[in-house]
Amino acid sequence: MIVAIQGEAGSFSHEAALAMLPDCIVLPCARSAEVFERVLKRKADAAVIPIENTLAGPVTEHFDLLLEHPLFIKREYPLRIRHNLIAAPAVKLAQIRRVRSHPVALDQCRKFFRDHPRIQQIPFYDTAGSVKHVIEAGEKDAAGIASRQAALEYGAKILKAGIEDDPKNFTRFLLISHGERWAKDADKISLAFSVPDQPGALFKTLAVFALRDISLSKIESRPVKGHPWQYVFYADLKSGQTPATEHALHHLREICPMVKVLGIYKAG
Amino acid sequence: MIVAIQGEAGSFSHEAALAMLPDCIVLPCARSAEVFERVLKRKADAAVIPIENTLAGPVTEHFDLLLEHPLFIKREYPLRIRHNLIAAPAVKLAQIRRVRSHPVALDQCRKFFRDHPRIQQIPFYDTAGSVKHVIEAGEKDAAGIASRQAALEYGAKILKAGIEDDPKNFTRFLLISHGERWAKDADKISLAFSVPDQPGALFKTLAVFALRDISLSKIESRPVKGHPWQYVFYADLKSGQTPATEHALHHLREICPMVKVLGIYKAG
Repeated sequence: MIVAIQGEAGSFSHEAALAMLPDCIVLPCARSAEVFERVLKRKADAAVIPIENTLAGPVTEHFDLLLEHPLFIKREYPLRIRHNLIAAPAVKLAQIRRVRSHPVALDQCRKFFRDHPRIQQIPFYDTAGSVKHVIEAGEKDAAGIASRQAALEYGAKILKAGIEDDPKNFTRFLLISHGERWAKDADKISLAFSVPDQPGALFKTLAVFALRDISLSKIESRPVKGHPWQYVFYADLKSGQTPATEHALHHLREICPMVKVLGIYKAG
Repeated sequence: MIVAIQGEAGSFSHEAALAMLPDCIVLPCARSAEVFERVLKRKADAAVIPIENTLAGPVTEHFDLLLEHPLFIKREYPLRIRHNLIAAPAVKLAQIRRVRSHPVALDQCRKFFRDHPRIQQIPFYDTAGSVKHVIEAGEKDAAGIASRQAALEYGAKILKAGIEDDPKNFTRFLLISHGERWAKDADKISLAFSVPDQPGALFKTLAVFALRDISLSKIESRPVKGHPWQYVFYADLKSGQTPATEHALHHLREICPMVKVLGIYKAG
């Protein structure tokens, strides 16, 4: 099974893909739009994408792409994000003067940098890419911060594991593909909808679920491109394919100009 | 008046600060946390921060910082984001082979890169910083993408103005400082609140406003650090300091474990 991911091989998306589908082959793509394109054109069987991090928040671009494409969420997987300091095999921690990584990763390892004030932080476009660069450029005084998978991928060494400040650091990954909109054992529904431009519109929309005792596990809003200050909402319901949810979706379509079911799947 | 901003001089924050306070002196800070710190310790009189972009969405880190610090929103300003291709004064467009800028800016100029397939995109940490780098490194085949202010700041030349794909590209900037929580002519209230972990909790919370005919102009959710899958909500009300809003805030505090008024100010 070929699974498209955004970023270099060895990224956290790669780790999440292997956790969900141990035998898959990952297809690294430079851009998220390309990830969706590959699945759409059946160059990949599925994609694994991060959708939210418990510290950094939503991956907003992926919400937009989910809405635009006729692909559905099949599974979710919350991956514990463990940042590792990774360098060339012969390099020791005392030699490190520069650490490259994605700004979000650098930011999540503040304690490490406070404890090592002589080490300079260098923002880089990708976590796994930082390890790739350090190894390919033969840097002896530099390291990257990335997943364990990145060390395996580029023949590098983990100098220090788990350097993230907060162990409660998870990213929720989604497996998306063509085909059936819902899984048999589903207990979670992801929706996108827009609300009419009226006072109390969101309140009326949420009544659709509250009146039927259906819980929301989350709700997000995103700006609508080309329509400044208008928003589309993303909600997760704690519910499978039941008569109550079918009635709720029917009621939702009565109120909202746009409703899209993004997936009906088993909560991870 | 000294105004702290995140990023290099010449950034869009710099443009927004000058639009709100034409005589201010900007104090560039590397990190957003530093921007808040400078105001808190009265090294700056105020700060100007981006809070949401109509294409890219919320600047989530700034929501977190607003919640954590005893500073209030005094004004807002929607700045039209106009991206410009900027290079050293003697350089011509035909010479350009590489364009550096922040990944969000590169992404908002896709049409330009489609029309100029020989130009390579290079992600950089900052828009204004890309111009600073091109000028300081004396690059003759490179340009940056940044605000008009960046060209002024670094003695550079605009090779092509307005290269963004979508003219409906605005960023809402906030002026924040110490002192009074509300302005006299206020017609907008920004709030943060957490909802109890019960089914229908957000619905009951929104009833507080719907029951009093108070409109929400937006609502966002953000993860709570250290509490995976719990959220804090940010809402903007279309209302000033009226008896109805005072009752609504009282009612909100009855329901929600945490309520913070972030500012009561005039809509921009």
